[in-house]
Amino acid sequence: MTEIRIERALLEITDREAAASRQRYDEAGVLCLNLMSSPGAGKTTLLERTLEALDGRLRVGIVEGDIQGELDAQRLARFGAPVRQINTHGACHLDPRQVIAEAGDMGLDALDVLGVENVGNLVCPAEFDLGEHARVMLLSVAEGHDKPAKYPLMFRTSDVLILNKVDLLPYTDFDVAEASRLARELNPAQEVLEVSCRTGAGLDAWIEWLVARHRAHLEAR
Amino acid sequence: MTEIRIERALLEITDREAAASRQRYDEAGVLCLNLMSSPGAGKTTLLERTLEALDGRLRVGIVEGDIQGELDAQRLARFGAPVRQINTHGACHLDPRQVIAEAGDMGLDALDVLGVENVGNLVCPAEFDLGEHARVMLLSVAEGHDKPAKYPLMFRTSDVLILNKVDLLPYTDFDVAEASRLARELNPAQEVLEVSCRTGAGLDAWIEWLVARHRAHLEAR
Repeated sequence: MTEIRIERALLEITDREAAASRQRYDEAGVLCLNLMSSPGAGKTTLLERTLEALDGRLRVGIVEGDIQGELDAQRLARFGAPVRQINTHGACHLDPRQVIAEAGDMGLDALDVLGVENVGNLVCPAEFDLGEHARVMLLSVAEGHDKPAKYPLMFRTSDVLILNKVDLLPYTDFDVAEASRLARELNPAQEVLEVSCRTGAGLDAWIEWLVARHRAHLEAR
Repeated sequence: MTEIRIERALLEITDREAAASRQRYDEAGVLCLNLMSSPGAGKTTLLERTLEALDGRLRVGIVEGDIQGELDAQRLARFGAPVRQINTHGACHLDPRQVIAEAGDMGLDALDVLGVENVGNLVCPAEFDLGEHARVMLLSVAEGHDKPAKYPLMFRTSDVLILNKVDLLPYTDFDVAEASRLARELNPAQEVLEVSCRTGAGLDAWIEWLVARHRAHLEAR
């Protein structure tokens, strides 16, 4: 019980910090997206393809979350967008304070969209609000279509579900209809997009969603 | 700092409980294995193939850890081995108390091997000793060969690394040599096995490892 009370108290602090971050993003007209998935589902590759496809149409800044190392930030740096790496040193998720510190340092006025790549983990990141306006989650089809039933919170709280690596569908037992059905059962409003970051299939729909979401964000101010 | 002190205190409690569990497994001559990986790397399928391949040669009991649902326990029940499902209700890893409660209830004297399938998560389960004698981790080749560098603790503390889904190698950029090199850099003693639970490739080496490890466990008593 003590453990549960401590957890609740920590979550309340996080929620307050997240609300303060969101207000700063709002004031600067920045759309903040929280990208989440299991390790290796393709978050960094999605960001690479997104920066390529936008080709400067939106000013995107990236905050990279990893337990250790700078591999992902290095991969993204070559696209010319501002990228900051956070190392959590063992922690299994980012928190809003870490993100706003890096984003603020980058200069919010110079950004239209802030993409935050969370630590690869289908469980813990879903519990922590980073001050984002939308959650984008990826599920690699190599992980299996039963995942919504087993890891429900991230599916329940994400605005978009990107089924990635659809180029592997012929070589797996993944059932797209069943995955979509399970996800929609948890979250009827969730958009489901079928994508292959490797071949580029389905990326247009993702870019359309992103541009429309950014427009809606500005119009709602 | 308070958060860190609380975490340390909780880990110390867990470590004491794990030591007590290990002693009970030792007294009963049971080899306890902690199976860990990202979601969808193939833990349940490895257990299915293992029960099939052993065909009763060893008496195996399974403890299944999932955030919610009984899907995995249902999949395993048809092999006739005793299976217990633990639902963590949101928690991102199993703890030793949960496991020994189910295993003890199953009857340790009726078992040679206890296989514990942890929650799918490449981060948190690695921090918690369950009282196991060996850690077996899986990495699906669809996750990418950079994972040891980004999620080091599980690679550092696992006795065996099963590179699973090698049937997908022709359709991915996964570099087996590089993954093995990164893993061995963290953990020179780690055994690396290349397996496809789907086609059965490499399973013989895994079963050999398991039978030899069980024999060594009994001889060391």
